[in-house]
Amino acid sequence: MNEDDCLFCKMVARQIPVTKIYEDEQVLAFLDIHPVSDGHTLVVPRQHFRRLHDCPPELLGQVASRLGNVARAVVAATEADGYNLLCNNGRAAGQIIEHLHFHIIPRKTADGVFDRWPSHEYPEGRIEAVAEAICENL
Amino acid sequence: MNEDDCLFCKMVARQIPVTKIYEDEQVLAFLDIHPVSDGHTLVVPRQHFRRLHDCPPELLGQVASRLGNVARAVVAATEADGYNLLCNNGRAAGQIIEHLHFHIIPRKTADGVFDRWPSHEYPEGRIEAVAEAICENL
Repeated sequence: MNEDDCLFCKMVARQIPVTKIYEDEQVLAFLDIHPVSDGHTLVVPRQHFRRLHDCPPELLGQVASRLGNVARAVVAATEADGYNLLCNNGRAAGQIIEHLHFHIIPRKTADGVFDRWPSHEYPEGRIEAVAEAICENL
Repeated sequence: MNEDDCLFCKMVARQIPVTKIYEDEQVLAFLDIHPVSDGHTLVVPRQHFRRLHDCPPELLGQVASRLGNVARAVVAATEADGYNLLCNNGRAAGQIIEHLHFHIIPRKTADGVFDRWPSHEYPEGRIEAVAEAICENL
């Protein structure tokens, strides 16, 4: 998907209406129309990047620096007990719109959302091998 | 939990060993020992904050600016098809360790992890009311 076909680019350009929460020179924040919970907010950089790692570190930092204030307001308004910040990268990870975006999802105690956390343990020696492979790519 | 009792503060202080991926003056990145998938990485600010919104915006931006590079290396090393960036805030949202941390979770196509996304639609008029309440708190 290129920038011309991007839903979020059209929202940033005001070609498609959004329920805006916040905007400034770097970001636009608006309510997801298919929320996991009321107040589910999306924060997107105005500039088009597909993935988190496509966004230059300095700009990524500027975008992320807004997340705390937006999250605090979402929690206060929805009287939430907590929230998830989630950024899905790639179709395999659940990313639908190919424009970098951060979900802020207000949560209530025992709401049953995202309650599956299927962790495992590394077999002996595996964690060191994985770490070495990551470090070789850094 | 105060800073003295914090597992991640002890890891930052090298009182508890970690499988380190990356560190600098602001952050420590290491492998989760109970991974959702191999290469599941945690990125934490060295300084203790409980929640995303407790971290001053400038420092939050500095921490977040590292996430893209770490994620790129994790994906390359694990040959992942995508990844989730996840930050749970509060027990209701699944936060176990009370020190702000970002999960980077490598994903493969159809791996069945986090495949539940229980969204709904707002009844008429509700989305505007929620947005107004959030904006009043910003």
